[in-house]
Amino acid sequence: MTEAHPISRFPIPDLADMPEDIRNRILAVQEKSGFIPNVFLVLAHRPDEFRAFFAYHDALMEKPGNLSKAEREMIVVATSNLNQCQYCVVAHGAILRIRAKNPLIADQVAINYRKADISQRQKAMLDFAVKVSRSAETVGEADFDVLRSHGFDEEDIWDIAGIAAFFGLSNRMANVTGMRPNAEFYSMGRG
Amino acid sequence: MTEAHPISRFPIPDLADMPEDIRNRILAVQEKSGFIPNVFLVLAHRPDEFRAFFAYHDALMEKPGNLSKAEREMIVVATSNLNQCQYCVVAHGAILRIRAKNPLIADQVAINYRKADISQRQKAMLDFAVKVSRSAETVGEADFDVLRSHGFDEEDIWDIAGIAAFFGLSNRMANVTGMRPNAEFYSMGRG
Amino acid sequence: MTEAHPISRFPIPDLADMPEDIRNRILAVQEKSGFIPNVFLVLAHRPDEFRAFFAYHDALMEKPGNLSKAEREMIVVATSNLNQCQYCVVAHGAILRIRAKNPLIADQVAINYRKADISQRQKAMLDFAVKVSRSAETVGEADFDVLRSHGFDEEDIWDIAGIAAFFGLSNRMANVTGMRPNAEFYSMGRG
Amino acid sequence: MTEAHPISRFPIPDLADMPEDIRNRILAVQEKSGFIPNVFLVLAHRPDEFRAFFAYHDALMEKPGNLSKAEREMIVVATSNLNQCQYCVVAHGAILRIRAKNPLIADQVAINYRKADISQRQKAMLDFAVKVSRSAETVGEADFDVLRSHGFDEEDIWDIAGIAAFFGLSNRMANVTGMRPNAEFYSMGRG
Amino acid sequence: MTEAHPISRFPIPDLADMPEDIRNRILAVQEKSGFIPNVFLVLAHRPDEFRAFFAYHDALMEKPGNLSKAEREMIVVATSNLNQCQYCVVAHGAILRIRAKNPLIADQVAINYRKADISQRQKAMLDFAVKVSRSAETVGEADFDVLRSHGFDEEDIWDIAGIAAFFGLSNRMANVTGMRPNAEFYSMGRG
Amino acid sequence: MTEAHPISRFPIPDLADMPEDIRNRILAVQEKSGFIPNVFLVLAHRPDEFRAFFAYHDALMEKPGNLSKAEREMIVVATSNLNQCQYCVVAHGAILRIRAKNPLIADQVAINYRKADISQRQKAMLDFAVKVSRSAETVGEADFDVLRSHGFDEEDIWDIAGIAAFFGLSNRMANVTGMRPNAEFYSMGRG
Repeated sequence: MTEAHPISRFPIPDLADMPEDIRNRILAVQEKSGFIPNVFLVLAHRPDEFRAFFAYHDALMEKPGNLSKAEREMIVVATSNLNQCQYCVVAHGAILRIRAKNPLIADQVAINYRKADISQRQKAMLDFAVKVSRSAETVGEADFDVLRSHGFDEEDIWDIAGIAAFFGLSNRMANVTGMRPNAEFYSMGRG
Repeated sequence: MTEAHPISRFPIPDLADMPEDIRNRILAVQEKSGFIPNVFLVLAHRPDEFRAFFAYHDALMEKPGNLSKAEREMIVVATSNLNQCQYCVVAHGAILRIRAKNPLIADQVAINYRKADISQRQKAMLDFAVKVSRSAETVGEADFDVLRSHGFDEEDIWDIAGIAAFFGLSNRMANVTGMRPNAEFYSMGRG
Repeated sequence: MTEAHPISRFPIPDLADMPEDIRNRILAVQEKSGFIPNVFLVLAHRPDEFRAFFAYHDALMEKPGNLSKAEREMIVVATSNLNQCQYCVVAHGAILRIRAKNPLIADQVAINYRKADISQRQKAMLDFAVKVSRSAETVGEADFDVLRSHGFDEEDIWDIAGIAAFFGLSNRMANVTGMRPNAEFYSMGRG
Repeated sequence: MTEAHPISRFPIPDLADMPEDIRNRILAVQEKSGFIPNVFLVLAHRPDEFRAFFAYHDALMEKPGNLSKAEREMIVVATSNLNQCQYCVVAHGAILRIRAKNPLIADQVAINYRKADISQRQKAMLDFAVKVSRSAETVGEADFDVLRSHGFDEEDIWDIAGIAAFFGLSNRMANVTGMRPNAEFYSMGRG
Repeated sequence: MTEAHPISRFPIPDLADMPEDIRNRILAVQEKSGFIPNVFLVLAHRPDEFRAFFAYHDALMEKPGNLSKAEREMIVVATSNLNQCQYCVVAHGAILRIRAKNPLIADQVAINYRKADISQRQKAMLDFAVKVSRSAETVGEADFDVLRSHGFDEEDIWDIAGIAAFFGLSNRMANVTGMRPNAEFYSMGRG
Repeated sequence: MTEAHPISRFPIPDLADMPEDIRNRILAVQEKSGFIPNVFLVLAHRPDEFRAFFAYHDALMEKPGNLSKAEREMIVVATSNLNQCQYCVVAHGAILRIRAKNPLIADQVAINYRKADISQRQKAMLDFAVKVSRSAETVGEADFDVLRSHGFDEEDIWDIAGIAAFFGLSNRMANVTGMRPNAEFYSMGRG
């Protein structure tokens, strides 16, 4: 599909001109997904930031731990809609549908996770993620206690906070660059 | 499709027990859509409010005027996501995709209309709709002037305000009743 | 009393040019009140919306139920002042004074209902009404439990939410149209 | 008139036990008004603060200057309603009606001054007063320029800011003490 | 140290032209501190307000009571940073460091008192002070109960509220006048 | 100096147990600064995130470009105080004082940059940084135009946004972990 609309307010380098490690990562993603998610092209404008961004992303989203991959995507989707980030809601909504094998869950979690078809434990996880995203200055022991009462341990709490914080960065960069979601994401995983 | 989840916190009357005019309206919608949108069932708990609600809805959404049907749905979708109303974003997102014959537009407008593939005139329309929805007390002549500069006349301005105000009511009732979007809406019009 | 100030930013139809049902409703109100409340004239610009608006209003404000008529007006007055709606606070403040036979209550409820001469049950009712008006997306079971502990049943809860939601619509239309309260309302019921 | 409701959460000293200067001020007010406004009794619990409070009040509200006495009261009424201060809106609303010889103006200014029967210059004055009250940290040269364009000089600007700031203090003390407006104020000046 | 920057947007009177009582107070402060804190010079533009301001200040900050002098300064520092008042945070931060004999405490309390090296009782005091400063309209019995559970009595509660309210006034005047903190304050008490 | 207070809610690994690259980075910082800033120890709990965090940090803060090093620190300090992040304001305030060779600037920028001793160009830079931090969803062409009018080019704009976004992440992690500023930072660069 050709894009009539720019995917960034900033220049997009040609694949041929990118540093080799960045080009290779992009080609690997393209191989796997069938297309290049625009976040890779937009951030390639800044190779050092690109490398740090995806290293951080992978450290949070692909590490082992008690949070399922779908749960990590729920955090992204719920906080990104509050931050009005088109790219993150559309792209990670697609991933969430696929990870959760549920065509309805991404829109539910994005719009109002309190009414989504998820567990009470997952709602507590998202309550905390939203608090980190909107008013982290008020996070305190009482929040940790609520999470522990739902079975989350210290490492899970760090993971939830880390994902909410990292995508807060991502949301802001996407909104400033005008990062455009690829058309492919909108219908992925809708079954 | 059977629903494992309740569609309302309040009782849903049987079709057979509804007043005839309400049952007939519901059967006509079912005939046309192939399913009964849950808003009809949820509000049927209160027949007089049901009648007023849909009369108001039709007066704003189906009247002649300069705003296209797709534009009216844009107003619903943009304001309802700010109000975190699952039912209205999902159901009217579907209608917007169909009216605009554009599978991407509903998610774009819901998440951040400022970056959607719509005209500057439509962005001005949504700026005003969001202002009516969030801080109508500050609406003044300067807002009317901006709208006029985009070619909207007085009747269009009333229409934009009326739709934003009416769906503010609808969003609040959907959030309080826990109105659940029908599964059918999520994938409609995604092409 | 003649009005030196316009009562709406939009045209006001002549009584003689209105559809008969609307003219009759207005004449009946005039007969009963001694003057025509401006909301009737302002909304008569849009006959279909006029009919739906007052049908909705009557369904909520004049239906039988556990909420007294004064309590329904308290909801209107408390939420309308937060929405900075001159017409609704002034007009429904007058009605509240009359319904409650209390010349002080409307100003108290409008400015800060938490310190008004009303019962704890009524304060819980207004806490919920304000939550519906300002952040309905966060309404949940805990809110219903609080209301039940004060003796409100499910139907009462719908009534409170419906009134807060409907006057949210009314407040927005009044602010956009520049609807002017009739001078008569200011001193009614002040004893 | 006897008060069935406490006028403060804190103790109220007997007139006989007050320091003489405070008792004399209170008796003088009673002589002039026919009753003792509760703010005098509530603050008499703290004689030094009482003296400073009324000295500050008089310095701002009774000094000569370009702002009329009615305009000073408009500032009090508009900012106090945003701060949800029952005492200040009710008591100073009464004074505003009397100073302006206008029975409607206090409710208009309290609820939404943008739609009150006041001049554009007075609306600019209240825009600034509200900004001082709600977000003084963003006040800058552009705000001074707007005020100058309406004919306000430097001393007037200080007066507007001072009144908004002083009644911000007053609103907070009234809300914390639970200061109750005297019943007499509600109907004063309503003509 | 000479000041290249104006200390106020408004005129500063010469010491020689000030009323004697004001000049004497300023000279006494200079004698004690080694410099004249700018708040004295800025407010001297308005002698009556100057007198009332410092009388109020002294009534709250120098009265006997259970709150220590350092605790009173904590209230000033925590609320003034939320109000983004440069003068009050810098000047009272210096006083707090000196009163508490702790070079770190002022920055901790200013930025996020919830994580400062202070007692739970002091955090409860600051929770209440911040509530008075930001949303006094919602203060109620539950807040008083929390404070009592930490050992605060009624007079302490008034003190906390009074200081938060008074410095709300001070913050607003400092932001409007562009009151500049003296260079001396920044490093005082840093040990 | 010994620390009586924990520097994190999470475990801090021993230097000896850290991966070699992380230990080496920490030893190099200690060598240069004379102490180990706590952010290194707190984040060492998560080696992969540690590496990504500092790679991102260096890419933004140490890259060549038109923004001076002091200007980059201004962005950190101004946005971190709005996010109430003790660690970032205290630590980067120290760095700002040193970079700018100005003992007053950090407190001025932290508390209210609009009144700091910085240029109009720097205030425009901070206006944009704060907008990215608080409401990036509304960033648009008009914001870019303002920045261009102050001489910022596209790369500068990305830098400002990137720093504000990255420290938004850092602020949230510091608030959730309870990251404690080292005592050394408070007085560094105060002259």
